[in-house]
Amino acid sequence: MDKVKIAILGASGYTGVELIKILLRHPHAEIVAATSRQDEHIADLHPSLLGRLDLRCEPFDADKLKAKGVQLAFGCLPHGNSMESIPPLLERGIRVVDLSADYRLRDVKVYQEWYKESHTDTANLAHAVYGLPEVYGDAINGAKLIANPGCYPQTAILGLAPLAAKGLIELSSIIVDSKSGVSGAGRTPKLATHFPECNESVSAYSVGTHRHTPEIEQALADIAGKPVSVIFTPHLMPMDRGILSTIYATPTRTVTEAELGDLYREYYVGKPFVRIRKTPPATKDTLGTNFLDVCVKVVRGKVVVIAAEDNLIRGASGVAVQNFNRMYGFDERTGLM
Amino acid sequence: MDKVKIAILGASGYTGVELIKILLRHPHAEIVAATSRQDEHIADLHPSLLGRLDLRCEPFDADKLKAKGVQLAFGCLPHGNSMESIPPLLERGIRVVDLSADYRLRDVKVYQEWYKESHTDTANLAHAVYGLPEVYGDAINGAKLIANPGCYPQTAILGLAPLAAKGLIELSSIIVDSKSGVSGAGRTPKLATHFPECNESVSAYSVGTHRHTPEIEQALADIAGKPVSVIFTPHLMPMDRGILSTIYATPTRTVTEAELGDLYREYYVGKPFVRIRKTPPATKDTLGTNFLDVCVKVVRGKVVVIAAEDNLIRGASGVAVQNFNRMYGFDERTGLM
Amino acid sequence: MDKVKIAILGASGYTGVELIKILLRHPHAEIVAATSRQDEHIADLHPSLLGRLDLRCEPFDADKLKAKGVQLAFGCLPHGNSMESIPPLLERGIRVVDLSADYRLRDVKVYQEWYKESHTDTANLAHAVYGLPEVYGDAINGAKLIANPGCYPQTAILGLAPLAAKGLIELSSIIVDSKSGVSGAGRTPKLATHFPECNESVSAYSVGTHRHTPEIEQALADIAGKPVSVIFTPHLMPMDRGILSTIYATPTRTVTEAELGDLYREYYVGKPFVRIRKTPPATKDTLGTNFLDVCVKVVRGKVVVIAAEDNLIRGASGVAVQNFNRMYGFDERTGLM
Amino acid sequence: MDKVKIAILGASGYTGVELIKILLRHPHAEIVAATSRQDEHIADLHPSLLGRLDLRCEPFDADKLKAKGVQLAFGCLPHGNSMESIPPLLERGIRVVDLSADYRLRDVKVYQEWYKESHTDTANLAHAVYGLPEVYGDAINGAKLIANPGCYPQTAILGLAPLAAKGLIELSSIIVDSKSGVSGAGRTPKLATHFPECNESVSAYSVGTHRHTPEIEQALADIAGKPVSVIFTPHLMPMDRGILSTIYATPTRTVTEAELGDLYREYYVGKPFVRIRKTPPATKDTLGTNFLDVCVKVVRGKVVVIAAEDNLIRGASGVAVQNFNRMYGFDERTGLM
Repeated sequence: MDKVKIAILGASGYTGVELIKILLRHPHAEIVAATSRQDEHIADLHPSLLGRLDLRCEPFDADKLKAKGVQLAFGCLPHGNSMESIPPLLERGIRVVDLSADYRLRDVKVYQEWYKESHTDTANLAHAVYGLPEVYGDAINGAKLIANPGCYPQTAILGLAPLAAKGLIELSSIIVDSKSGVSGAGRTPKLATHFPECNESVSAYSVGTHRHTPEIEQALADIAGKPVSVIFTPHLMPMDRGILSTIYATPTRTVTEAELGDLYREYYVGKPFVRIRKTPPATKDTLGTNFLDVCVKVVRGKVVVIAAEDNLIRGASGVAVQNFNRMYGFDERTGLM
Repeated sequence: MDKVKIAILGASGYTGVELIKILLRHPHAEIVAATSRQDEHIADLHPSLLGRLDLRCEPFDADKLKAKGVQLAFGCLPHGNSMESIPPLLERGIRVVDLSADYRLRDVKVYQEWYKESHTDTANLAHAVYGLPEVYGDAINGAKLIANPGCYPQTAILGLAPLAAKGLIELSSIIVDSKSGVSGAGRTPKLATHFPECNESVSAYSVGTHRHTPEIEQALADIAGKPVSVIFTPHLMPMDRGILSTIYATPTRTVTEAELGDLYREYYVGKPFVRIRKTPPATKDTLGTNFLDVCVKVVRGKVVVIAAEDNLIRGASGVAVQNFNRMYGFDERTGLM
Repeated sequence: MDKVKIAILGASGYTGVELIKILLRHPHAEIVAATSRQDEHIADLHPSLLGRLDLRCEPFDADKLKAKGVQLAFGCLPHGNSMESIPPLLERGIRVVDLSADYRLRDVKVYQEWYKESHTDTANLAHAVYGLPEVYGDAINGAKLIANPGCYPQTAILGLAPLAAKGLIELSSIIVDSKSGVSGAGRTPKLATHFPECNESVSAYSVGTHRHTPEIEQALADIAGKPVSVIFTPHLMPMDRGILSTIYATPTRTVTEAELGDLYREYYVGKPFVRIRKTPPATKDTLGTNFLDVCVKVVRGKVVVIAAEDNLIRGASGVAVQNFNRMYGFDERTGLM
Repeated sequence: MDKVKIAILGASGYTGVELIKILLRHPHAEIVAATSRQDEHIADLHPSLLGRLDLRCEPFDADKLKAKGVQLAFGCLPHGNSMESIPPLLERGIRVVDLSADYRLRDVKVYQEWYKESHTDTANLAHAVYGLPEVYGDAINGAKLIANPGCYPQTAILGLAPLAAKGLIELSSIIVDSKSGVSGAGRTPKLATHFPECNESVSAYSVGTHRHTPEIEQALADIAGKPVSVIFTPHLMPMDRGILSTIYATPTRTVTEAELGDLYREYYVGKPFVRIRKTPPATKDTLGTNFLDVCVKVVRGKVVVIAAEDNLIRGASGVAVQNFNRMYGFDERTGLM
């Protein structure tokens, strides 16, 4: 089988390098271009790639990417940048998996409210598919533009999907308390992520204002068929990678752990990357993998769900490849096990 | 002023060494004995104490401690052990600050339910004072036996005390999501606290079953004057020290952040170790100190309180010295600033 | 091509789980058995393997392994245990890559001096091949028994091999100062590797007495054709994985960095896992890979070599698979890129 | 006794905040001013100081500091800045402990060679005293200007002083292999100290070019009475604080560990902050203290010295206060135990 020719847009960050590492093992992918404002060899930006990928980064140019035969681009650009770069690619017939937030929220008003910017590409937004395979699987298969889901939202959405689908929880009092490794903050140095500041420390940030809130609500509302409101509190943990979300919900009727365990196992049958655990997962159990581990408990009448993932793999680059696999009809596990 | 002669019971662990470090700087304390099953020089158990304290650990013997003139003992023994060792000290007129859980819960049935052991010293339990100075201040001053509060409970109790005192929150739906450094698990090696297991990982543990739950409920009920029920989820963080608790409560009426900030500042006037923060605290802001930092937010109609402390100082050995200061009429800040 | 049927001996530790993860991606390997004293499903010992390998650990039994068709066993047993378990496998025609130290030192007196035990399998020791592919490549190809090299020694040996081969350094004054992550100490909990003890701390250990010393000397002597003496100081770093060795040697004549860089690049031509770096490598550049990165500097007339690897992959399980690949005639990169 | 009025110059960094924490406990010091380009309350720059020091940072102005009665300034400015700010203070009779490198090297040519700048204050350089109390003790007592020693150099100098003083080691082949926590790199965010870059990684930097090299050589030459040449390799460790130096030297005659232990204990009699250890120290043993722990070993005829300290306390702010104590005739332990 011919390999799909791939470009990585914005290859200098952490999601870029993780994508490259996954794709280097993928039997049906060939990385033919990487773009960056830093006009350097990819191994100078990421020494770990030395001897693994011989490619020089280039400035973004849709025509040049097309000329190289690029069929699919993974967008690792910041939000705002993405919706500028992606339209010319789609026009040239290049499919896109966008890891930014630009195409995740269907309602541009919601986008503007949370991202404080106008949306400039509503045309493509209209056909973008939210790339959470376990929920939107079939729509992904033929899509031209995938809005790859956010790292935190996946833990919340997949952690609650079986309950929301069955109407088993109140939808207005969900609490998502999430803990993330520092790589989630990106590769640009800042005081908050300077080692001696965040090491040996835990803190909450963006309390009540984090932009992943409406993304969680949109997907859970899709699943439940009703509006959803969540309180979402992200925390920074002193570690490289991993997200653990502890989710609190009020059941609409009395439930048992055994019953909920069965419900979850059934819901995720045939979905190889969601593992239902009997004991609470540690983020380390998912490190370097595309698995999302979920454990559901009942505590004093409340439902407590614990969901863990690697924020750079499952939370970004791994699920992006899972989406790519679906778009091209490959087994969705290809390159990811 | 003569110095108070002090013994440390169970000096080989982390709370023991922290107590010693604080007391070495305390102008009115003199450590005259340290007990341990390990019959070694204290600096062999804790190399950090070399050149600072020349003392050999001895087996516990109440008569010998009395003969050395010990006036106050800090108990750093495991629960169960404490209630065996403390009665003979009290009989000999030695006052005790007990860092274990043995004298915290007034109701022995609750103790038995959560600790799975019978209580063997109900006589002293009857007069023990729960040593949270900001709440039980005056009762501490003349006490013979202080039940030093748990690390997690202090963040939850002090984080919610102003709201509970004013009847501003529903008392049956409180959620306490806590994150702790590994030193909270003690000094005995176990797989869960083996470095390569818990480093670079976050996990929840004792979900719905942690023994600090009834302690939080007892104190909040004292403050509120009504029964309280909490869902408490502790998590292990890859760091040495620090607890951050993120607390979710439903207000009984509409509240604003400004109003709650005023309420908190007023409640903690004259209580030098509680700092009301406008922005969410990081645990590192409290590292090595007896401060407990609190920030109160209103998110989508819910109250979100974030409280941070150093689990070994404020959460154990520091508040123990604060209690000691009160017991002997010293300024409660002595040795702790 | 038929897959080679593989057993993992001693699957409960860190090298075991890393081997399994590598082999699950290997196109020519099939894990058919895993042994452990812990009679549990492999995913209960290593939750990260849930959904990836459905295998129950079994007690070691050479006949049962043979009956399952095992062709090659990877030994992840402690030294001492290895030389008991391996002879019956070899007798039954099962090839072995042994990750313990039992077959590394050709001279049993040296073994007894450093390991304080008698060697009980000198017969197989006589034909064991030291499995450092970049140095002993051809001998590995047909071997029945590979002594997989130690983690530290590989950095020292490959870091100095080009110089030793050319007679460019004095062989009696080599200093190897090595820094390792904690996983190198194994999975058994001990005080020294209890998180709050070793986190946020660096320390030297086994100064002048570490058992990898004679292994380094044996291989460098093979390369140089003369006896070698090294001073080797290992240090424990607060991180999971990675070894960085900083090596100091006195050149036998004036040398330049440019000249040595050429020498190293030439020496490692065709050896895909050794990367010659112009700037000092960080261990993170090699994390999760089988690469060993080397940078050679000249400082005030001395040669300073810096070598980095992932101690569990290149230092153990990765190079074991590299050896396996050579033994069966696969490209040595198979499953490792 | 009246308190000495103190200013902190450049209070926004890590050495500034550590100095403040130490001085807040010092019975004879009163912080009356803190300078910074950031015109903010000190507790906004360092939240840990909230409720402990009520002081607003001000721009540097020698007249204003004089008007506030400042008697002594601690300089926490970058090198280059220091030699601009300090002359006007000295002119106004304000004594200075300078934590920068500007007054450490007596030979301005050496300064220019390593720091790539001209020295602009040779007048004050002529009377500056290198503030390593264990070596230059008496000269410190009356000094107007102390050049506070570098963090790495103290471990090397105090680690070798007894040997250098006795002529027991060759002075041209000393190797100092040092490992430091990240706080040593300062508080300005950079890619190299961005958490996900340096966490879980070890690397060497400034190999052969680090500016502490001539400082080590100058002091050891003072002690030995002969020129000294060292090879110094610093490494970055994934932790906040602590330096461990492993030092290799060739003895000039056969020596034993017992003999060297005696020599070290004798040399450091009456020097309370140097602790001679029988077993290799961990940096954690010195965390938060002004101790410098030293262990001396003989390995295969070479001397191996291991020295540990807290780089921010002993390596900077603690020794600065030790110098301050000497300058004012206080017991040198005041505020530091």
